[in-house]
Formats: sequence, structure tokens, C-alpha cells
Amino acid sequence: MAKEIERKFLIKTSEWPGCSRKTYFKQGYLSADPERVVRVRIAGEKAFITIKGANSGIVRNEYEYEIPVDDAHQMLDSLCHKPLIEKIRYFYPQENLVWEIDEFLGDNKGLFIAEIELPSEDYAFFKPQWIGEEVTGDKRYYNSNLVKNPYNKW
Amino acid sequence: MAKEIERKFLIKTSEWPGCSRKTYFKQGYLSADPERVVRVRIAGEKAFITIKGANSGIVRNEYEYEIPVDDAHQMLDSLCHKPLIEKIRYFYPQENLVWEIDEFLGDNKGLFIAEIELPSEDYAFFKPQWIGEEVTGDKRYYNSNLVKNPYNKW
Repeated sequence: MAKEIERKFLIKTSEWPGCSRKTYFKQGYLSADPERVVRVRIAGEKAFITIKGANSGIVRNEYEYEIPVDDAHQMLDSLCHKPLIEKIRYFYPQENLVWEIDEFLGDNKGLFIAEIELPSEDYAFFKPQWIGEEVTGDKRYYNSNLVKNPYNKW
Repeated sequence: MAKEIERKFLIKTSEWPGCSRKTYFKQGYLSADPERVVRVRIAGEKAFITIKGANSGIVRNEYEYEIPVDDAHQMLDSLCHKPLIEKIRYFYPQENLVWEIDEFLGDNKGLFIAEIELPSEDYAFFKPQWIGEEVTGDKRYYNSNLVKNPYNKW
């Protein structure tokens, strides 16, 4: 089990320089219950099943296991809630941290979210100028909620 | 992915001889939605996460992955729906098949269910005399439903 300490921000797309390190993600949910989220994700050439507990502030318990990509495709197609989430994740290194910027596709096209995982809750980090409003804890931006209420319906 | 072809029966407890091969099971559910059940199970010294799709007759798609036992304990304690299912599973070999007899504990004490996994839907098998009424497909006996509506409330 890992504790995930993460902060989320919108980005100012016009100021974001983009970056070349990126991976295509396709994911869906077997449970979107915020107390026990169960996600199936294909990330590039790999696939994972991930279980997340409820948030306690910005900290969240997370369990992740690699699974066969074929199983993930089948579960996404036949078992997960629809629509699936599709996005391109960009990796933007900054000192010893990495910003992960998600460009959403499909029903969430137009939405960009930057996330940074921190070693501790009070860890100080630099915000590049293209980082916009903080949305940590705003449930509308949970990927599990973007299935139920996608960005194109906002 | 495996296809699970399984038939379930009550047993005549007074006629059942018992058997010595047995394992203690503790399990809980992250999703009890019959379209996408997600189960965490500790079986003796091992632990698994299992995803099951909806039944199509007696056939059900199933995906199972071994996980660390410590993770399973944490997920059972903190994330799974309560109460948990606790049971002793007995293994009763018969020709090339194995009857699995579950003796439920806790809130389901008094309930015994025998299951047999078959190589094909129309496979012929012998029923020992201690096998009682068939309950395949009876949703009350789904372990995921025994959490919501345990046997001691029937």
C-alpha cells in the first residue's frame, strides 16, 4: 500500500510549452464509489488495477497491481462503467519532482489537469507560470466523476 | 480471463461425512454490483483480488490476481463493505472434480453450500447423497449478497 499525496491544478493552456515525454492512457472504473474506487488502466504497454480509499485531506491510500494488458482490454470493454476515460499524460520533470499533465480526450476533450505527487503534505514546490487554479479535492475533477459527468456536459 | 462454470447446492448436513482438506477464507467486497463484482479474499496463506462479470446462465467471466496478504488485510479492514464473509472451505475430491463445501461463520453461521466447477456446461457429474437442493443462480446465496443480507436475518 502506498499513501498518495497529490495536488491538482488546472493549467493555462496558452502558456504551457508542452513536452515530449507522454503516454496514452485508457481507463475505466469497476467501482466509482469514492470510499473504494477500483480502476482498470492501460498505460502505454502496461496495465494495472488500482484500488483507492477515500481522501483524508490530500492523502489517499492506494493499492496498485500490474495485470495482463489483454485482461485490461476485456475488462474495459465489457465490465467497466462507460464512457471510458482516454487521455494523454505528459511528464514534465521539475527538480526532483515530476508534473503529470493530463490532456483529456473523448467526452472530456478540452480539459487539462496538472498533478504533482509530493513526498509529504507540507512539501514546498515551485509552480511554473502555466499552472492555474488549484482544484485539489474538487470532486468534479476526479477521473471517476468525469465518467459520470464528463467535461463536455459542464 | 477464465470462464467459471459452476453449480451450487445446499447440503444435507446430517449426511455429510466432513473432510480433512480445508482452508480458512476471509473475504470482502469492494464492489457488490452483480455486473462487476470485485472481491478481496484471504485463502489460507495467500490473498487474491478477483473481478467477476455478470452471469450468463451458469457461466461467468472471472479475473483473479494474487496480491500481498498484508494489502488484503488492510483492504478488508478499511475499504471493503461490512460485514466480511468468513468461512471454512472443505475440498472433497470426486473422480477428476472437486466439491468445495463452504461452512459459513459469523453472520452466516449455519449455512453450508457445496459448489462444483465443471469443464463444460453439460458435463455429467455424480451427486453424492449428502448433496441437497440446487441453488445455482439463486442470488440470495451469492457471497456478495450474503454481506448485504446475511443468513442470520433470513
